Amino acid sequence: MEPARQQIASAAAVLTRIREQRPLVHNITNFVVMNDTANALMHIGAAPVMAHAPEEVEEMVALAGALVLNIGTLSREWLGAMIIAGRAANARNIPVILDPVGAGATRFRTESSLRLLEAVNVQILRGNPGEIATLAGISAQVRGVDSVAAAAGSREIARTAAAKFGLTAVVTGAEDVIADERGSLLVGNGHPLMAELTGTGCMASALIGAFAAANADPVVSALGALAGFGIAGEKAAVKAMVPGSFRVALMDELYLLTAEDILAGARVAGE
Amino acid sequence: MEPARQQIASAAAVLTRIREQRPLVHNITNFVVMNDTANALMHIGAAPVMAHAPEEVEEMVALAGALVLNIGTLSREWLGAMIIAGRAANARNIPVILDPVGAGATRFRTESSLRLLEAVNVQILRGNPGEIATLAGISAQVRGVDSVAAAAGSREIARTAAAKFGLTAVVTGAEDVIADERGSLLVGNGHPLMAELTGTGCMASALIGAFAAANADPVVSALGALAGFGIAGEKAAVKAMVPGSFRVALMDELYLLTAEDILAGARVAGE
Amino acid sequence: MEPARQQIASAAAVLTRIREQRPLVHNITNFVVMNDTANALMHIGAAPVMAHAPEEVEEMVALAGALVLNIGTLSREWLGAMIIAGRAANARNIPVILDPVGAGATRFRTESSLRLLEAVNVQILRGNPGEIATLAGISAQVRGVDSVAAAAGSREIARTAAAKFGLTAVVTGAEDVIADERGSLLVGNGHPLMAELTGTGCMASALIGAFAAANADPVVSALGALAGFGIAGEKAAVKAMVPGSFRVALMDELYLLTAEDILAGARVAGE
Repeated sequence: MEPARQQIASAAAVLTRIREQRPLVHNITNFVVMNDTANALMHIGAAPVMAHAPEEVEEMVALAGALVLNIGTLSREWLGAMIIAGRAANARNIPVILDPVGAGATRFRTESSLRLLEAVNVQILRGNPGEIATLAGISAQVRGVDSVAAAAGSREIARTAAAKFGLTAVVTGAEDVIADERGSLLVGNGHPLMAELTGTGCMASALIGAFAAANADPVVSALGALAGFGIAGEKAAVKAMVPGSFRVALMDELYLLTAEDILAGARVAGE
Repeated sequence: MEPARQQIASAAAVLTRIREQRPLVHNITNFVVMNDTANALMHIGAAPVMAHAPEEVEEMVALAGALVLNIGTLSREWLGAMIIAGRAANARNIPVILDPVGAGATRFRTESSLRLLEAVNVQILRGNPGEIATLAGISAQVRGVDSVAAAAGSREIARTAAAKFGLTAVVTGAEDVIADERGSLLVGNGHPLMAELTGTGCMASALIGAFAAANADPVVSALGALAGFGIAGEKAAVKAMVPGSFRVALMDELYLLTAEDILAGARVAGE
Repeated sequence: MEPARQQIASAAAVLTRIREQRPLVHNITNFVVMNDTANALMHIGAAPVMAHAPEEVEEMVALAGALVLNIGTLSREWLGAMIIAGRAANARNIPVILDPVGAGATRFRTESSLRLLEAVNVQILRGNPGEIATLAGISAQVRGVDSVAAAAGSREIARTAAAKFGLTAVVTGAEDVIADERGSLLVGNGHPLMAELTGTGCMASALIGAFAAANADPVVSALGALAGFGIAGEKAAVKAMVPGSFRVALMDELYLLTAEDILAGARVAGE
């Protein structure tokens, strides 16, 4: 991988580009986070759209700069729509981000995630350690949508998944790791209060979509979204230390986030 | 149309009536905005209900003062429920409001909107310029749920749609226009921060439903909802200039909105 | 029933247990409140998961400490998933909470609620007076999701439902009543602003699920959730007297709620 400092500069430039270009990000995501995801995408500067009807996803994704698939409240019908949309995105070289929420908790979620990874060329896979470990074939325990335990550290999980699926794997949690076949990066931004809110992982995946819609390097996309969202969280925690108020401040700070914030605040280490 | 001053007075009186009567507003709407829509309706003084099962929509709408149809996350099944509910509403003279979210972005949305307009007697159609232009047969560009360009101004779009479908057409955006076969009105209330939040257009449509549930004149209903929501936005922007905080303040101001606020603050011009 | 003072002490201890054990609460609930419900459960200390696919609900509920069924935006397909999940919960002695949103408003909601009560062994049934009266066979009027009138007081409604279905019945409203075959309790906590927000009833049901996941006595679970949520509402109203801001404060106070708050603030009277 390139030096972290250079990738931070690239990520900061992508934020500026998002705000200039307002790329459309097509989400097929879960019911819990749709509103938060849409607002987070708007505040970072992108244009969100949610559409899941098999009749329209192919046409909708063709208008988009990125497709974000999230299986948080999956059904068989929505899985079908995700595959149609994912293949249409692939055919047009539109990057696809997959958030395999709850993979490892039920066979349906694990198998659906693996089916998506087989049927669709996913550019960036983001999840918690238990979810990504499960998909990578590493023993792990997932309870509901929470990672409880995994037989490896996040770096090994991310690197294994990246190698197995030939993509950029992002494992978020106590430490955030971005890995591809060339190596891995650690992103140290964020605040513990982000884990006290539902949907912050899903928001991170959606924000990765915004960066991927305005940039061809998936490592830069993941880095920009994770560092940017994390910095917004750090700034929000200065204003509010309880989750209801923190959530409002987090949205405010996403809107106020600048390229300079990423340049000055990103904590990224190569490995 | 009647003089704007008289219609503002009528709209202010309708707000008082909503708070006294607490009319039920039946929504078949999209997943992104359901919570915001329900809270906005409660804060204006109405009683929201969301119900989409074909087994019950006919019975539910019979209890309601208005039906709001919104295709923001449409599927074939929900379209069927909308038609059943819309026809039941028509049979009982319950006003129907249609928000054709994303019409023009995909054929499914355009065709579904046109099918709803054919199958159901819609009293008020509200959308952005691209959506309403598309349905009116005026060339336009819609990307996701955003209006990008239209070959006519909002006033011409609204008047054309009103004439084509025989209803009151509302085009919101940089300028808000309300048109029927008699003429058109401009509503100048609102604040740019409202466009930085997801679902404010959908909330406007739902609020039109609240006014339509307490008033027979669709122009007054649209005027009251647009001016009232816009004034709430103006007042909220005095308290908060960033969208996370602004959203909280907007909900507060909807709750605090009075008939006097509409009388004093509505900016309406006839054409 | 046991003396109220003793049950308050038990409920306070359960709150501590929830925060230590972080029990998984599986929700099959409505689209309007999914996000609020998930955040409320996180703030009280539980781990929420939403899953409705028939392919996975049996497996998901087996990981959970409680199952919360809520028919607020019901469809035939989701009803089927609720029955599968409910039976799987019963087979493992996982407590099931049912919130029959809108029972009495449409036949579909009334019949679906009764079918759930027949097919699944429900531990705690929570609703407004009109909903629970309808299910108990007492004449009532429900409009949308609001209780308009009932031919009996909340205490008689709760006691009748408890006896008819052999469960703990909770009727919330102007007064909150918890009843089982042994008697009834009144809980006097809460604030009128809670009724100005959508989904506070649904949040109460979800919080009962969190308490039921960490405690075997359904009366204690209902008491802890209603008193705890009510106390959070009372504390929030000190900070904010308008619903947008109040909602943020309510979430903050749920997070800050302690066992001591319940011990000191619960207002419970036996009958």
